[in-house]
Amino acid sequence: MPIITLTTDLGDKDIYQAALKGSILSLLPGVTIVDITHSVAAFNTQQAAFILKNSFHYFPAGTVHLIGIDTVFNTHTRYLAVAYKGHFFVGADNGIFSLMFDAGPTEMVELNIMQDLKFLHFPLADIFVKAACHLAGGGSLTEIGIPIVETEKKMNLQPVVDRNLIRGMVIYIDSFQNVITNITKDFFNQVQHGRRFVLYFKRNETITHLSWHYNEVPEGEKLCLFGISDHLEIAINKGNASGLLGLNLGDSVIIDFQ
Amino acid sequence: MPIITLTTDLGDKDIYQAALKGSILSLLPGVTIVDITHSVAAFNTQQAAFILKNSFHYFPAGTVHLIGIDTVFNTHTRYLAVAYKGHFFVGADNGIFSLMFDAGPTEMVELNIMQDLKFLHFPLADIFVKAACHLAGGGSLTEIGIPIVETEKKMNLQPVVDRNLIRGMVIYIDSFQNVITNITKDFFNQVQHGRRFVLYFKRNETITHLSWHYNEVPEGEKLCLFGISDHLEIAINKGNASGLLGLNLGDSVIIDFQ
Amino acid sequence: MPIITLTTDLGDKDIYQAALKGSILSLLPGVTIVDITHSVAAFNTQQAAFILKNSFHYFPAGTVHLIGIDTVFNTHTRYLAVAYKGHFFVGADNGIFSLMFDAGPTEMVELNIMQDLKFLHFPLADIFVKAACHLAGGGSLTEIGIPIVETEKKMNLQPVVDRNLIRGMVIYIDSFQNVITNITKDFFNQVQHGRRFVLYFKRNETITHLSWHYNEVPEGEKLCLFGISDHLEIAINKGNASGLLGLNLGDSVIIDFQ
Repeated sequence: MPIITLTTDLGDKDIYQAALKGSILSLLPGVTIVDITHSVAAFNTQQAAFILKNSFHYFPAGTVHLIGIDTVFNTHTRYLAVAYKGHFFVGADNGIFSLMFDAGPTEMVELNIMQDLKFLHFPLADIFVKAACHLAGGGSLTEIGIPIVETEKKMNLQPVVDRNLIRGMVIYIDSFQNVITNITKDFFNQVQHGRRFVLYFKRNETITHLSWHYNEVPEGEKLCLFGISDHLEIAINKGNASGLLGLNLGDSVIIDFQ
Repeated sequence: MPIITLTTDLGDKDIYQAALKGSILSLLPGVTIVDITHSVAAFNTQQAAFILKNSFHYFPAGTVHLIGIDTVFNTHTRYLAVAYKGHFFVGADNGIFSLMFDAGPTEMVELNIMQDLKFLHFPLADIFVKAACHLAGGGSLTEIGIPIVETEKKMNLQPVVDRNLIRGMVIYIDSFQNVITNITKDFFNQVQHGRRFVLYFKRNETITHLSWHYNEVPEGEKLCLFGISDHLEIAINKGNASGLLGLNLGDSVIIDFQ
Repeated sequence: MPIITLTTDLGDKDIYQAALKGSILSLLPGVTIVDITHSVAAFNTQQAAFILKNSFHYFPAGTVHLIGIDTVFNTHTRYLAVAYKGHFFVGADNGIFSLMFDAGPTEMVELNIMQDLKFLHFPLADIFVKAACHLAGGGSLTEIGIPIVETEKKMNLQPVVDRNLIRGMVIYIDSFQNVITNITKDFFNQVQHGRRFVLYFKRNETITHLSWHYNEVPEGEKLCLFGISDHLEIAINKGNASGLLGLNLGDSVIIDFQ
């Protein structure tokens, strides 16, 4: 039961999704196509990387994840297919692979299955689909590309440790207006060593308790927890944390361990 | 051909839908997943109940309907699986079942398949998915929970009969801006007894004829009919009834039988 | 592996998509349903025709395309099923077929499978679904309708040739705010005869080079190309062409060949 997921900025009103899905179903009848999202902000590789990094592992091993962000042909952009933790990823080498993978991929190839570069205004429905269907159908990476060892590097801004402090920042606001930071659970645990803490943000707001779930505080009160992304998240129980607390992308948060 | 439908407030831009769908496909490969909607207003059980109550019966018997509204773990909230009219429903016992079912369910269980309550910040992709896949795969309710006889009660405001009048209210505005009331066709028919009527709403607007379809009046004119939800609906042929008539959620409508 | 695609203005928050998909899965278990879009502007047959005309051919031959735009019962509207280039289309005879097909369809029938006209307030989930499932399941057109030879005519405004000029107009703005005109690649090529050209639009903006892809000019610069719709498109590399250039639906563009 091959599965291909789609993570793109194509929106849901134009012909682009249909061109993509029709092309997939033409090449690999019976494949299950799952939309991760088509609402990534246009060309926003950081946002796409955050979403796919934190959701691909819910799918069965062998799933192919097609990444349709910033894929337009460019004389210096390569198209890659990559194996990582039992999954396959197909996308442009625009830095997104380095944003998603903590460890290195198991295997990477630069795709060499394009036929005419002049017509690559929509490589998604052409070369990407060919590669994804090939892999979803059980084909190998080396049949569709040349092995490579490095991908384009982009860096997520990492939280830093400064004596008793972790200095982090807001990297994502979700549909519920929960505020997600770049501080992962692993990073937090490594620094905490069982100490108590005060989380500071905005005009002297503080949170001193780590919740297990959103309902641990009364409705309308703020809390912090590690959500399903395993990133530290500031939320309001049944409320709009971003709006009510004035927290936006790029804002600083500080954890002071005591 | 098992089918699982999804009715949630998760939106379409985050990792949550992917976590949910990936988890389902990992447990039950080949299942057909259908999005009923992910655009329910956050935590709005009334809206979710209206949508699912009026759409579940279009699916084949045996379909499992997963309800992802207001499901966060809470010391007093139970997670249920319910059989009703040949369909299965999985959700939190937050009142939504009483809002959807006129008659009682055939069989209900409180799920007892959770393993660690501390990690229930996203029960949807964990316990709900396990229950839904179990049922969609042909499993029984009693294998995943303890039989119960009562669910949490919430009440939809019902229309009332007052001599020659039905007093009702607007409970839903759809994407076309059609205005849907809480007066069902059955209720209307029981009270009407073949009498003529005047439907009153807003600044002395009236409608005196029940249409069979939207095109029965000229474009731009108002009408009322029983739409596919079998609720009395006020519409404008190819127009925006809510905006043009100033009708909003909670507004009163009165039917005067003559 | 039968496929049914959906192109509608039903939106994604109500019961209508669920009613449609549930009805399809009840009649033809195992069919693959693909959403082309449910975000067509309400009743906008021109927009729906543009989208479906430019995307249907990506799907495998034999795919059934269900068109849910302006389908409400009307004493003078017929419901049709049509074969065109190996695909099937089911929709109301409101002019949309003439907007989509350059050549005539191979075969057309007026559906005669409705049972009770009085209940046709949502023909999509009733007669359209019956017809689509019949065709997707391998049935023939003449089993569900009476052959016809003409459909309702609507005209897309065509570009005109005026000596050295092509006068066209903007007919679609996509999610990236790319500006798509009614000048097709074939039409352009027939008039160009290898000549150089100046594309004029808005306050004396001009473009004199036809790009192969969006990245051929620096980021933020304007370009024109034939996109995947094969229509002449004005874009800004990674920018909002409609907003920044002030180009809207219906605006004129002129190509001056030299």
